[in-house]
Amino acid sequence: MSVQIHTLSNGFRIVTENMPGLKSATIGIWVDAGARHERLDQNGIAHFLEHMAFKGTKRRTSLDIAEAIENVGGFINAYTSRETTAYYARVLQEHVPLALDVISDILLEPAFDPRELEVERGVILSEIGQSFDTPDDIIFDWLQETAFPDQPMGRPILGPAERVKAFSRENLAGFVQEYYGPEQMILAAAGAVDHDAIVREAEKLFSHLPRRAATLAQKANFIGGEKREIKDLEQAHFTFAIEAPGFRVDDVYTGQIFATAFGGGMSSRLFQEAREKRGLCYSIFASASAHEDTGMFTVYAGTSGDKVAELAELTITELRRATQDMSDAEVERARQQMKAGMLMGLESPSSRCERLARMVSVWNRVPDLEETIAKIEAVTTPKVRDFAQKLCLTGKPAMALYGPVDKAPTLATLADKLVA
Amino acid sequence: MSVQIHTLSNGFRIVTENMPGLKSATIGIWVDAGARHERLDQNGIAHFLEHMAFKGTKRRTSLDIAEAIENVGGFINAYTSRETTAYYARVLQEHVPLALDVISDILLEPAFDPRELEVERGVILSEIGQSFDTPDDIIFDWLQETAFPDQPMGRPILGPAERVKAFSRENLAGFVQEYYGPEQMILAAAGAVDHDAIVREAEKLFSHLPRRAATLAQKANFIGGEKREIKDLEQAHFTFAIEAPGFRVDDVYTGQIFATAFGGGMSSRLFQEAREKRGLCYSIFASASAHEDTGMFTVYAGTSGDKVAELAELTITELRRATQDMSDAEVERARQQMKAGMLMGLESPSSRCERLARMVSVWNRVPDLEETIAKIEAVTTPKVRDFAQKLCLTGKPAMALYGPVDKAPTLATLADKLVA
Repeated sequence: MSVQIHTLSNGFRIVTENMPGLKSATIGIWVDAGARHERLDQNGIAHFLEHMAFKGTKRRTSLDIAEAIENVGGFINAYTSRETTAYYARVLQEHVPLALDVISDILLEPAFDPRELEVERGVILSEIGQSFDTPDDIIFDWLQETAFPDQPMGRPILGPAERVKAFSRENLAGFVQEYYGPEQMILAAAGAVDHDAIVREAEKLFSHLPRRAATLAQKANFIGGEKREIKDLEQAHFTFAIEAPGFRVDDVYTGQIFATAFGGGMSSRLFQEAREKRGLCYSIFASASAHEDTGMFTVYAGTSGDKVAELAELTITELRRATQDMSDAEVERARQQMKAGMLMGLESPSSRCERLARMVSVWNRVPDLEETIAKIEAVTTPKVRDFAQKLCLTGKPAMALYGPVDKAPTLATLADKLVA
Repeated sequence: MSVQIHTLSNGFRIVTENMPGLKSATIGIWVDAGARHERLDQNGIAHFLEHMAFKGTKRRTSLDIAEAIENVGGFINAYTSRETTAYYARVLQEHVPLALDVISDILLEPAFDPRELEVERGVILSEIGQSFDTPDDIIFDWLQETAFPDQPMGRPILGPAERVKAFSRENLAGFVQEYYGPEQMILAAAGAVDHDAIVREAEKLFSHLPRRAATLAQKANFIGGEKREIKDLEQAHFTFAIEAPGFRVDDVYTGQIFATAFGGGMSSRLFQEAREKRGLCYSIFASASAHEDTGMFTVYAGTSGDKVAELAELTITELRRATQDMSDAEVERARQQMKAGMLMGLESPSSRCERLARMVSVWNRVPDLEETIAKIEAVTTPKVRDFAQKLCLTGKPAMALYGPVDKAPTLATLADKLVA
């Protein structure tokens, strides 16, 4: 077995997987801290912190950080999601120790230089502006907000511009203090990596960190509702969501099989009915996402203003129909898509590294592929139909609409049809 | 050497590369036909054809096509660029013959069913609408149009909506007849593939095609100019381009090294000056693209309306400065980025397959990595400065602006500064 896990005495975890034949590796640190860990007055700070990590440490300027990795042809990046902030690099194998040194430095010793902070504020305000210019990006923020109103889980990861304008150095340091403890961090590496060497380095870099408890994130409460933003755009953007299981529930695989069969590929019902038969749209898909204590089944489509009503109603009709006639062939195909997708995804060191970190964060171990495949195999057609039935009966869906959407039906109309 | 090439008697070429350790493969057909092969009245047809390939053949309905690949967990996709249309699939190794069968079928035997054609027209109009809602997508079409006005090279790949509304089955069949000959197609496969087996299959599927000459694309003529579309967006989108070498010129490597050092990563001049020092933007980059007979050095940035003038002028100042002081360290770093980026990219079967097809299309052979690396190594600092100097003196730049861009300088002002 090539996956190896080691835990330092302060709770800091290291997980690696050697992939024979590769000459490069992905290495990074995944921190259990994201937008849902923020209080209202902190909204946007996890993401701001991610940006500031690259703006200099006690040892390195922002240029030093970029040069260190790019001098050896690698790249370094980071992202913030609702539950995680990740910092990672992809480098050729001989530069793995360098990458680890840089990543640990930016995480543990950010300088938060006041001048750099002002510069980065401008960059983030620009990023927020860009998201507002991208309808099929911002609409997912709105959907999240309608699903989880007035809660950390429903707030935008980038935060609102007014808060970003006000964050101070103390605010950033306070968030680090609260959430960047050794038990909240996972060092993951995949590709041409040597477990023992990484553990030795990690011991030097992270074992001095004092163990400390993190504040737990507020439990998510899926409420649902509608947001309709009428604007003169070319496309009417439609998103619709229903609460689904979180990742601690075995049903999570049933949900993923259902979402795949329903709208996960070219042979899926939504794609066939909306795009192939009716030509209603270019982009359309369904997905199932899972978090610690909740999940979300989501449909997105971009269409024209005069077709958005038909498309919204078709989505509901198809959901209802799936409870009755989702077939063995469709379930089997979705299973094959999930299995092969996983196998092919794992041929990339970055996807593999990401999976290692996520598995250790959730389960404190990495289930082998056979175990995961067995769970996918255990999903039967009756379970999938039953899952669709539960979705229809869950109530409280969320819907966000953007563009020429004045003719779209109300959420109440769609919700009624879902149970009619 | 694991790359193998075989040519059928009618000129159809097959290139494969076995990648030890992989259990999946990417296989596809790259056709030397894209938007630049279209006459004015055909603009958008190469892309329309790509869509129709998935809408049914003599043997398969559109659902059959999707199911054939997705039943075994694979995926199939296609794209159209200015010089190429590609159809490819990623599957587990045992399904490579199936994938080849499906791809050959959709390419050689499209049904062009009139009802399906009407449905797909709606889908493409929706795709065009979506591109207009995505400022940092559509602006590159406008830049291309200003660089190459009234020429096939400058027209949008999707085509204008009015033309897409009018295309007939005969128009599609005519384009296939003109450009989809065996000498214009390359079958490429990388990953867990068996060269001899693929050649045997290809012989059965493609050797009956009669050899025929394709009409040559009209030579591109970089003219330059300005397009400024003022709109109430959050961001001011700025793009600027200067003609650069096509891929038959050795200088193409100098251009790529220059673009990387100038705006290709976090340590690049543009990123450091515009984003890290001044906080003017979130997205900013430079790139160098190369075609058969021309190329393009491009800068993109998204900023706010009150900063777009500063950003445009900074771009010119930095271009001027690079002619004088681009350093050995910067050139060496860009070299490492290009080399490592290539090595890491080639660990993915899809990137590798894409490279095989492109190399065979351009050179009728696949240069090994050492040969390409030697060309990258041969780029010196004086060559890079000289390249920057040539860019500044080329004249006729192109610029496209979108959003709150009324305060941006005119192209004439920037062009003057470039040579001042």
